[in-house]
Amino acid sequence: MLIDEGLELLTEEEALELLPTVEVGRVGVTIGALPAIFPVNFRVIDGAIVFRTAPGSKLTAAANASVVAFEVDTHNSDSRTGWSVLVVGQSEVVHDLDVTFKVLDAGLEPYADGARSSIVRIEPTFVSGRRIVHAATGG
Amino acid sequence: MLIDEGLELLTEEEALELLPTVEVGRVGVTIGALPAIFPVNFRVIDGAIVFRTAPGSKLTAAANASVVAFEVDTHNSDSRTGWSVLVVGQSEVVHDLDVTFKVLDAGLEPYADGARSSIVRIEPTFVSGRRIVHAATGG
Repeated sequence: MLIDEGLELLTEEEALELLPTVEVGRVGVTIGALPAIFPVNFRVIDGAIVFRTAPGSKLTAAANASVVAFEVDTHNSDSRTGWSVLVVGQSEVVHDLDVTFKVLDAGLEPYADGARSSIVRIEPTFVSGRRIVHAATGG
Repeated sequence: MLIDEGLELLTEEEALELLPTVEVGRVGVTIGALPAIFPVNFRVIDGAIVFRTAPGSKLTAAANASVVAFEVDTHNSDSRTGWSVLVVGQSEVVHDLDVTFKVLDAGLEPYADGARSSIVRIEPTFVSGRRIVHAATGG
């Protein structure tokens, strides 16, 4: 177990296992030369992160043919524990019918109302993860 | 109330009110030309976002004298509701003793162990927020 400043560095396998255990992640994109982060509900389909956006939205434009970050995490303020997974990869708006059907079959329904008929896919290039660990204390 | 694709756009005042209601946010930086997002526990002190990092870490370097994104959100998968706030601003590693004491006084203790004696401060330039709203359905 590799510990870096109180954080256990997860293996890529461990990080990929944790990724689909939550429903909402955050995508980091660049809009007009400025960084932005938006929460999206997502699924992992065929090893890629997939979420739905509104056609013509800034997020859809920013996530088409870009290198983006995608992050998920879970925290518990009582136990002061938590983990996070960071994926960096190429994103694209999907026009493939095969992928579209898989997304619909997976029941990926955005929480928000409104037409979210664009599907964005992020192919992971770099996957990393960290978990907060505390030295065992006697009790 | 301005509704954009099922999302209510919050005013800056509403967004700034929601910001300190959670303990963990996510900072979006660029490391080696690639985007990255890391969770941090933070406080709002004198109108700025403040969190602690490990000196010499990649996050500390990336958050020094950069324009960064900072995001907080809350979601409920049962009611399919939630909100998010996005702040974009200039970040810097703080060397001011006055700010340092305020951070310690505020009880900002990172969840993770390890020396986190660098203090990063983000001065908000752009603040925005979104809240998921559903059309009322008869009951």
